[in-house]
Amino acid sequence: MKITLIGAGRVATHLARALKQQHQIVQVFSRDLQHAETLADQVNAQAINQVNQLDPHVDLVIIAVSDQAIFSVIESITSYLPDNLIVHTSGSTSLSVLQNSHYRAGVFYPLQTFSFDREVNWAETPLFVEAAEQQDLAFLTELANSLSHRVYQYSSKQRQTLHLSAVFACNFSNYCYDMAKQIVDAEQVDFSLLYPLIMETANKATQNDPKQMQTGPAMRGDQNILKMQRHLLAETQRNDLENIYALMSEGIYKRHINQE
Amino acid sequence: MKITLIGAGRVATHLARALKQQHQIVQVFSRDLQHAETLADQVNAQAINQVNQLDPHVDLVIIAVSDQAIFSVIESITSYLPDNLIVHTSGSTSLSVLQNSHYRAGVFYPLQTFSFDREVNWAETPLFVEAAEQQDLAFLTELANSLSHRVYQYSSKQRQTLHLSAVFACNFSNYCYDMAKQIVDAEQVDFSLLYPLIMETANKATQNDPKQMQTGPAMRGDQNILKMQRHLLAETQRNDLENIYALMSEGIYKRHINQE
Repeated sequence: MKITLIGAGRVATHLARALKQQHQIVQVFSRDLQHAETLADQVNAQAINQVNQLDPHVDLVIIAVSDQAIFSVIESITSYLPDNLIVHTSGSTSLSVLQNSHYRAGVFYPLQTFSFDREVNWAETPLFVEAAEQQDLAFLTELANSLSHRVYQYSSKQRQTLHLSAVFACNFSNYCYDMAKQIVDAEQVDFSLLYPLIMETANKATQNDPKQMQTGPAMRGDQNILKMQRHLLAETQRNDLENIYALMSEGIYKRHINQE
Repeated sequence: MKITLIGAGRVATHLARALKQQHQIVQVFSRDLQHAETLADQVNAQAINQVNQLDPHVDLVIIAVSDQAIFSVIESITSYLPDNLIVHTSGSTSLSVLQNSHYRAGVFYPLQTFSFDREVNWAETPLFVEAAEQQDLAFLTELANSLSHRVYQYSSKQRQTLHLSAVFACNFSNYCYDMAKQIVDAEQVDFSLLYPLIMETANKATQNDPKQMQTGPAMRGDQNILKMQRHLLAETQRNDLENIYALMSEGIYKRHINQE
């Protein structure tokens, strides 16, 4: 299959590299030509930065840009690719954002967190496809199957739920790690001491119900420790961390108070 | 070495099982004799539930009970074990809580989260020891080395910092998973779809600075998605999750706003 990528960020880069194994990446578009070239060079594609350079002889155009930019991108490219299947890769953007401007609209959403310098295990990454046209849905499903064992046809509503859940499971848990690191850094304690704890917590939550795996002073309703730890945060002028500590502890306490 | 355990909960159980490999567990004390027996049977020890049954012919007494109970335990046992080394296993309880009642006081703190039905990798679990007497510190260090490659002599203040950090890295990240599961459960979406994301997020944070690994709408300052996701939570009457969503997103946004 012949594929064009719009965007040259983390998602575009990882997708292009993975798709290149079995398909042809024809063009990489970015408003910043240097960004386009950086990715295009890796996947033997043509780098472009003008919409009128878009080649309509492709099977699929993937918009992999920030959610905020998807609408302006589809508006600016649809007239050059009127009959091409065009998809976005966003969890929280509805299919209709494309479909309002373009009839062959679709979604190709990988549920994973991407960093430039880390390999992605595509075979295990869940992929969610959606399309306005039945034929395009079949095409996207086939394409997704060429990357991953875990392919699902999900509606925009289901995808939104997943993405919201992922914000808690991934973005917020990572921020918990970040806050944990700030706390030990301030006392010259080595953050790597917490690595076994972080990995065991994640392992537990993916092998059991995380509610049943909850531990800590808030779950036990240990008011002395809760008070002492809030005091420690207040002492170091970290009101931001203190507020999060209070709200998270309250949430955990209320969730477990009737369980004893 | 001859060791007695006070307590029969998760920490006491995992510690007793691990110590039994190279040492002798003499007694297991619990106010609930059945709890004491359950653990004592696993480690060939005597189960007791009366303080006057405590055998003073041991090298170490480990108090592995909830933080709140440590003070009353030391008060009730010190007269029966006046010359024994007695330690607690708590991150946030100061050495002085024991030392005020007992001269040979110490701490033996494993930085890990314990569940009844999961094996603990003791060799990789960081252990933190502290003692009032130099000789006891050397003894605890030797004992810790018999369990783990990662043994540290930490003050009560350093241990408190570590434990506070662990609450964020472990208890709060687990609650993020729990909230994520509640969100997908409400829409009959399978939580296991998020497993690769959870594991990759934890892996990233233990191989890089979690601040640099942050992703998501709050970090990008994507107000449309932030508004939409808060609305989704409000719609489902989950004000508790909405409040946490708002506070965490604000924290992430502020931490990254000056980075672009």
